[in-house]
Amino acid sequence: MEHTKFEKIALIGIGLIGSSLARVIRRNDLADHIVVATRSAETLSDAQALGLGDSYTTSNAEAVADADLVIVSVPVGSSAAVAEDIAAHLKPGAIVTDVGSTKASVIEQMRPHMPVGVHFIPGHPIAGTERSGPSAGFAELFEGRWCILTPLEGTDPDALERLTRFWQACGSTVEAMDPAHHDMVLAIVSHLPHIIAYNIVGTADDLEAVTKSEVIKYSASGFRDFTRLAASDPTMWRDVCLHNRDAILEMLSRFSEDLASLQRAIRWGDGDKLFDLFSRTRAVRRSIVEAGQDVDAVDFGRQATRLPGE
Amino acid sequence: MEHTKFEKIALIGIGLIGSSLARVIRRNDLADHIVVATRSAETLSDAQALGLGDSYTTSNAEAVADADLVIVSVPVGSSAAVAEDIAAHLKPGAIVTDVGSTKASVIEQMRPHMPVGVHFIPGHPIAGTERSGPSAGFAELFEGRWCILTPLEGTDPDALERLTRFWQACGSTVEAMDPAHHDMVLAIVSHLPHIIAYNIVGTADDLEAVTKSEVIKYSASGFRDFTRLAASDPTMWRDVCLHNRDAILEMLSRFSEDLASLQRAIRWGDGDKLFDLFSRTRAVRRSIVEAGQDVDAVDFGRQATRLPGE
Ligand SMILES: NC(=O)c1ccc[n+]([C@@H]2O[C@H](COP(=O)([O-])OP(=O)(O)OC[C@H]3O[C@@H](n4cnc5c(N)ncnc54)[C@H](OP(=O)(O)O)[C@@H]3O)[C@@H](O)[C@H]2O)c1
Ligand SMILES: NC(=O)c1ccc[n+]([C@@H]2O[C@H](COP(=O)([O-])OP(=O)(O)OC[C@H]3O[C@@H](n4cnc5c(N)ncnc54)[C@H](OP(=O)(O)O)[C@@H]3O)[C@@H](O)[C@H]2O)c1
Repeated sequence: MEHTKFEKIALIGIGLIGSSLARVIRRNDLADHIVVATRSAETLSDAQALGLGDSYTTSNAEAVADADLVIVSVPVGSSAAVAEDIAAHLKPGAIVTDVGSTKASVIEQMRPHMPVGVHFIPGHPIAGTERSGPSAGFAELFEGRWCILTPLEGTDPDALERLTRFWQACGSTVEAMDPAHHDMVLAIVSHLPHIIAYNIVGTADDLEAVTKSEVIKYSASGFRDFTRLAASDPTMWRDVCLHNRDAILEMLSRFSEDLASLQRAIRWGDGDKLFDLFSRTRAVRRSIVEAGQDVDAVDFGRQATRLPGE
Repeated sequence: MEHTKFEKIALIGIGLIGSSLARVIRRNDLADHIVVATRSAETLSDAQALGLGDSYTTSNAEAVADADLVIVSVPVGSSAAVAEDIAAHLKPGAIVTDVGSTKASVIEQMRPHMPVGVHFIPGHPIAGTERSGPSAGFAELFEGRWCILTPLEGTDPDALERLTRFWQACGSTVEAMDPAHHDMVLAIVSHLPHIIAYNIVGTADDLEAVTKSEVIKYSASGFRDFTRLAASDPTMWRDVCLHNRDAILEMLSRFSEDLASLQRAIRWGDGDKLFDLFSRTRAVRRSIVEAGQDVDAVDFGRQATRLPGE
């Protein structure tokens, strides 16, 4: 895989995603040199202590000098600022990509700054966890997962091929998609679930008739499943909501309509309607397990990782 | 624990909960004789093949004869019918309990049929999985979990003490609660999460702009967490919705109000409001992990149970 190896990869942002990239690039020998850039001196020194790169800087401009691949892994709302920082310092022929959870907005923010001769190819690895920061990453994060690229019109096929091979070398399967379609798909499979999870945890937290300690104590009966998503990074998710607004509002309004109809069925005791919906949804889980996208184990295999005191 | 052992325990209903009880009763030697009763000959023969009891019958009346503990583990909507079946055949001094997920309705359905001299003490183990049927059970299900009892006025303290010791011998910690309060607490920690999960999976399944195969493929980015709850037994959940209607409607309306406000924040780009909510909910997860009610592992420890192909 000679062609996959880059001379110098610049990682801008070194949180969960950036640091997982650093680890897999190192492990699979995908670059001669990794330069790590992040905004704060604190995060940079954490990254340094973890030995994630070969050189370190808080200057995005400095980081991209001579880099043949630049990967931007920051909250999507910071994409324009990063693009501005780096634009004048990019090496001709360099590939610039990102990992942001929304695509149309990132493109709008970054494309105007990208100089001619630089290959800007937006991307989004469908891999993550509820943790954040440089210590949260791990080299296996992308293994067996999808990575969506949303190449723009006129993208150089060789650059696209090289970036595709890079993600494959990280363990992912690459899929190309139109940015608007990406944003619609992700709104339902990722953004709406997170928003709903945040919302229900907020609702429970606000009750007066049920104490917080009761919510915690009895959470194993369903509630706890939502708290994982609702423990995700607030900055990342604020930005996702602000930057995929239209698709999210569309999905939210469908969800709310359906919920109103379910509420009506409960109010009027329409058992058949409830039974029909509750039966139909079982098949979806089966398909997800069959597609290898979740474990086929009760309670997500929590039994394997025993709880304290059990 | 001499006092904990019963001569004859009748298990009415032998699905996930009933069969888990059968297994733990056997393993921990909590009865001299286990009689298994279920509605269908098919389920009864599955139970027999699994060796769950000492005797088997499709007659609830026959099952309770001479039993000193009767545990009803059927969908809550069938409680009245079971109570009618068994009423005339209960041994004086017997304890009758249940495991239903709603309490006020079960009490309303069963109490009128309970003869004087029989101790009716409703209960609800806060333990379960998304699986159902006799083969889904396991002896460890109740270990380290809570079991709520909702004793009625005038309950015999000795009978209550005996039932409490029984659940403790199954590995649970017993808590007493008022039935109406139980129904309110469970509406938020269990019923609403399941309803929301069923609803979002339904919404995703109905989209035209996003294909089912895309939903499945990219489900690891959040959606799959909901599909576990939405794969739960449709009959059980239809009955829960119909029999805890008021508390569920109350929680649903609070959830919807909160969601409308969140939707408004997204529409108007109110980043601070989003950030505040998304930060607040993190603390809830931390408390749940600290209370030993969930594993402290990324992705619920799915990493421990590797996905096929990973
Ligand atoms: N987490 C997931 O599950 C997941 C999955 C797929 C894609 N993504 C996307 O990946 C990107 C990074 O997410 P992550 O989970 O790796 O986040 P993270 O762990 O919170 O790390 C964020 C990184 O971005 C930097 N950063 C934060 N605010 C910034 C700003 N205003 N300007 C410049 N840099 C800033 C941080 O630097 P300092 O610490 O120095 O401030 C840090 O290096 C996001 O766009 C997200 O949408 C996330
Ligand atoms: N699953 C959970 O996570 C959980 C947790 C706590 C409490 N609970 C409560 O436990 C009870 C049983 O749930 P489960 O999960 O064990 O259910 P399950 O696995 O589906 O088993 C249900 C049992 O009830 C019998 N049954 C079904 N419909 C009946 C009817 N109309 N009349 C008489 N018997 C009937 C079934 O008999 P046949 O197969 O012979 O029809 C089977 O033996 C429910 O009240 C539920 O609310 C469940």
